[in-house]
Amino acid sequence: MTPPQAAPKTPLWQSIAEALTADISSGRYGPGDRLPTEAELSARFGVNRHTVRRGLATLAEGGLTHARRGAGVFVAQRPTDYPIGRRVRFHQNIRAAGRLPSRKIHLTEIRTADPDEAEMLRLPKGGKVVSTEGISLADAQPLALFRSVFPADRFPGLIASLERLTSVTAALAENGVPDYTRAFTRVNAKLASATQAVQLQLREGDPILRTISLSLDATGAPVEYGRTWFSGDRVTLTLAGDLEAAT
Amino acid sequence: MTPPQAAPKTPLWQSIAEALTADISSGRYGPGDRLPTEAELSARFGVNRHTVRRGLATLAEGGLTHARRGAGVFVAQRPTDYPIGRRVRFHQNIRAAGRLPSRKIHLTEIRTADPDEAEMLRLPKGGKVVSTEGISLADAQPLALFRSVFPADRFPGLIASLERLTSVTAALAENGVPDYTRAFTRVNAKLASATQAVQLQLREGDPILRTISLSLDATGAPVEYGRTWFSGDRVTLTLAGDLEAAT
Repeated sequence: MTPPQAAPKTPLWQSIAEALTADISSGRYGPGDRLPTEAELSARFGVNRHTVRRGLATLAEGGLTHARRGAGVFVAQRPTDYPIGRRVRFHQNIRAAGRLPSRKIHLTEIRTADPDEAEMLRLPKGGKVVSTEGISLADAQPLALFRSVFPADRFPGLIASLERLTSVTAALAENGVPDYTRAFTRVNAKLASATQAVQLQLREGDPILRTISLSLDATGAPVEYGRTWFSGDRVTLTLAGDLEAAT
Repeated sequence: MTPPQAAPKTPLWQSIAEALTADISSGRYGPGDRLPTEAELSARFGVNRHTVRRGLATLAEGGLTHARRGAGVFVAQRPTDYPIGRRVRFHQNIRAAGRLPSRKIHLTEIRTADPDEAEMLRLPKGGKVVSTEGISLADAQPLALFRSVFPADRFPGLIASLERLTSVTAALAENGVPDYTRAFTRVNAKLASATQAVQLQLREGDPILRTISLSLDATGAPVEYGRTWFSGDRVTLTLAGDLEAAT
């Protein structure tokens, strides 16, 4: 009689998948990082590239990584949940996801409203808006580009507040709007343009969640018309339980 | 004194833009249709291709058409508004948008829940689901692919109802669930895979809105876990005014 057989040796590809999974869990390769090339992994583990590829395929099947043609294999981002409802507050949303929110303003100006903006903010033809645009970050990772416009005549002090504060909520509070709520949010899927890709650190053609929203003050007057372009890979828009559609 | 001058002659490119705009308004070229090639338009209008291109550029600037590299110039789709809230009913939503809803079922089966489905429907490990998948259409145009799973043990008659009826609402009503509401909807932007593109009549890499949702009966028990892949060009998800985020 031969003694009971030892458990079968772990296949090499599986061992590679486990080693890389451990590297990702430990943070050696963080979300969005590129893994070493097949050639580098082949050298590191002392196996042929076919075996490396099978190990990498296992990671991809589990959703831990994704390959980008011509660019390599990347650690998947766990998308940040971003609640969309009656009260949407960027800083609050990102903090609730356990991440550090920040905003960079690219441009704040007073200009004539375009027809779409004038209609939404109920401005006369030629009416002026305060416009602010920039980028939102979570843990210093670009999350979204935004552009918001506000009725300029109603808020003569808003441009100064927006230039000083990063939070729209705080700037509106300084200008006599202690609270505001969303009238609607509209969501589309788009592809990142070349400039959006550069700003959001994506690739051109990557998926984008674009939202359009209108916020009202307590009297129902429109105070903010906003457009946001979220990285589709980094954000999940969430609609909470007790939502009621206006039909 | 010379008599008052006649209004300047309309430039050729503008006249072409107007003729094509009229063709689109009249329905000669409907949403999603490909316009004739530059060569064909050049022959039709008896002008050079440079002039045709300038006319086409005017249409594109107005959002009436969009060019797809290597494929031609297409009449833009006006996206269908699709309200997402506590009560989401496909047929109702599409009819409210003034379009004719229909569904084609590709596969309905009973199978073991995957871990994600089991968790959402609160099934024991190895629990069974009724799974139905297919395509939703508006005016015979593909709008979305869907896959929904239901707890099989609770609804022994559901598979027969789903095979006979195209409406999930009607099938659930036949199986003792007169009403259900959404616990949550999660929205991501994705790119169409090759198979999704074929089914939705898109191109691989076109934008997709993917929603994940859970529906509960009146007692709060999960009855449907659904995933939907909407054509990003053809659908705008809308969140209505009196939504309250669960925070």
